Amino acid sequence: MAKCNNISMSVIRRLPRYYRFLSELDSQNVERISSNKLAEIMHVTASQVRQDLNCFGGFGQQGYGYQVKALKDEITNILGLNLNHPAILIGFGNLGKAVASHMSFNRLGFDLKGIFDKDINVIGSKIGGITVRSNTDIDRFIEENSIDSAFLCIPQNSVEDTVERLYKSGIRTFWNFSHFDITNIFEDAIVENVHLSDSLMTLCYRMNEKIDK
Amino acid sequence: MAKCNNISMSVIRRLPRYYRFLSELDSQNVERISSNKLAEIMHVTASQVRQDLNCFGGFGQQGYGYQVKALKDEITNILGLNLNHPAILIGFGNLGKAVASHMSFNRLGFDLKGIFDKDINVIGSKIGGITVRSNTDIDRFIEENSIDSAFLCIPQNSVEDTVERLYKSGIRTFWNFSHFDITNIFEDAIVENVHLSDSLMTLCYRMNEKIDK
Repeated sequence: MAKCNNISMSVIRRLPRYYRFLSELDSQNVERISSNKLAEIMHVTASQVRQDLNCFGGFGQQGYGYQVKALKDEITNILGLNLNHPAILIGFGNLGKAVASHMSFNRLGFDLKGIFDKDINVIGSKIGGITVRSNTDIDRFIEENSIDSAFLCIPQNSVEDTVERLYKSGIRTFWNFSHFDITNIFEDAIVENVHLSDSLMTLCYRMNEKIDK
Repeated sequence: MAKCNNISMSVIRRLPRYYRFLSELDSQNVERISSNKLAEIMHVTASQVRQDLNCFGGFGQQGYGYQVKALKDEITNILGLNLNHPAILIGFGNLGKAVASHMSFNRLGFDLKGIFDKDINVIGSKIGGITVRSNTDIDRFIEENSIDSAFLCIPQNSVEDTVERLYKSGIRTFWNFSHFDITNIFEDAIVENVHLSDSLMTLCYRMNEKIDK
């Protein structure tokens, strides 16, 4: 079946959710699912589900539904979750520790190869088989390990200098937890920002307005 | 000026970003800003900015732009960031520590009153003047401190039981870091989810497709 050429970011942003729900269904040995049921789990309409998945070539059959495992595998491929991009994490404070210990990077498209910090009190400590190294070793490590992405768990005021350094070493992909707007300065960088405070402010608004959806 | 009655969630989700950028401009003593310039910072169109802010009654003046401080104060009120909802945080692992130490709750609408964990190794430890308490004290604490919101930094498989307990104590507002779908079970709960893995999968996709915006 023909695929869409221009897939909108809103469809792309729903794909990880499809992947999560399908993985859960697959682990429960559910073999197939209707677009109605999938829509219910996803909190979207069935027509939205069909439209989204048609963008990637269908996979559904009328009256039969979707094959869970086949669809999950296809979304894994579309997202590129098997590609294991070699990555480093910078900043091993509480946030860096939380990210390093919570995320199953290998199932999410990345292979965490190294962790870096400037604080001599944490350099040398270990997490998940990775030893925290000094920031001074970053450039050499990137070259030797063909690193192509960086997870930034550092304060906003350190981001510009750090990104500049990483950019010079060839890194273009950044997962950024600060409010520093990387693409403002490094225009061709690929950046996903996690703005925890925006999420909390939205919660505050919805609480005041009693918006429960 | 008349305000919109039905404000869409996509407008609401942009408000925290307006707030952040306006706060930064205000701290740099910038007094006014054009919708064009604000649009540039926000990575949206000037017409989008005008449309968004008209929803809340305008504040702009043609040829003059927006008054930074007045607009920031107004968005503070709209979001309800001065209301200081009494909140608790549950789960003091790496993630809970990161959240408790990184977030300026008081500027984001909440007042973090208590932290809870079941692990006797962390109960009694302190962060920012708050002592970590045992989960067994949660219900009494909620009642005594009129807590109305909870930040859940616990694993997915503990969320259902925990939310059930908190719900019984009257809590309806949850900031949830797990993939457990709270509103599936507690329909009138107000929930903001932080799905770190979705963000990382999206980054992986965009990296593969070289989508740099």
